[in-house]
Amino acid sequence: MDFLLHSRLASDTVFIADWPLCRVLLMNDQRFAWIILVPRRTDVSDIFDLDEASRSLLTGEIARAAERLKLWAKARGPCDKINIGMIGNVVPQLHVHVVARAKTDAAWPGTVWGMGTAIPYAAPELSRVAAELRDRL
Amino acid sequence: MDFLLHSRLASDTVFIADWPLCRVLLMNDQRFAWIILVPRRTDVSDIFDLDEASRSLLTGEIARAAERLKLWAKARGPCDKINIGMIGNVVPQLHVHVVARAKTDAAWPGTVWGMGTAIPYAAPELSRVAAELRDRL
Repeated sequence: MDFLLHSRLASDTVFIADWPLCRVLLMNDQRFAWIILVPRRTDVSDIFDLDEASRSLLTGEIARAAERLKLWAKARGPCDKINIGMIGNVVPQLHVHVVARAKTDAAWPGTVWGMGTAIPYAAPELSRVAAELRDRL
Repeated sequence: MDFLLHSRLASDTVFIADWPLCRVLLMNDQRFAWIILVPRRTDVSDIFDLDEASRSLLTGEIARAAERLKLWAKARGPCDKINIGMIGNVVPQLHVHVVARAKTDAAWPGTVWGMGTAIPYAAPELSRVAAELRDRL
């Protein structure tokens, strides 16, 4: 079966890129620099559902995304930590949150999950940020 | 410099085991089956601070902990998802939360981080659970 992005992820994000394992998405929430990695595999909910080779790829892609997102965020303002989460209580398709956090942001020191309501980007800004991240991640 | 566990982690958890990379800890909060993996490395805050070999070890240990914690939790009651988080907004030492979640638990479908106040185990129960997890993880 072909890879199909869960409808909730599709509606909350825009496409950035396809990496060797993961589809890379930008969360449409201007409060946070927040990307999501989704392994392009079917029927995978947890990290232990991936074979070892795919797990290694995933880890490399998480580390790459985290490090480069931090650099990108720091060029725009403060970035004090990268938060990474594999949660999936609502969306069962395995996906990894990678979020740049600052001590000045709306959720610090708490986490972003379930925190308030997303503030979507204006359409031109959404395209601009996605394009920039396509180059920088 | 020798590995030293951050004081906050030391006070919130008890020791389960040392795996090849990580110290495995049980969070002293009976609301959730919640373990924490801490790579025994110094000066590591983010996954990208680890070299590739250590990252692979970490991923293997996360997958092992997640899969076995789920089996252990399911033998005791419902377990609908494993949540994994690398957050570190409060404790800068790299540590990975691995939490068994159920639709009936106190935080579902939200995350456990920052949710309410920990309810410590009674001392004999804490030792019993840690010993059981030492065998089962």
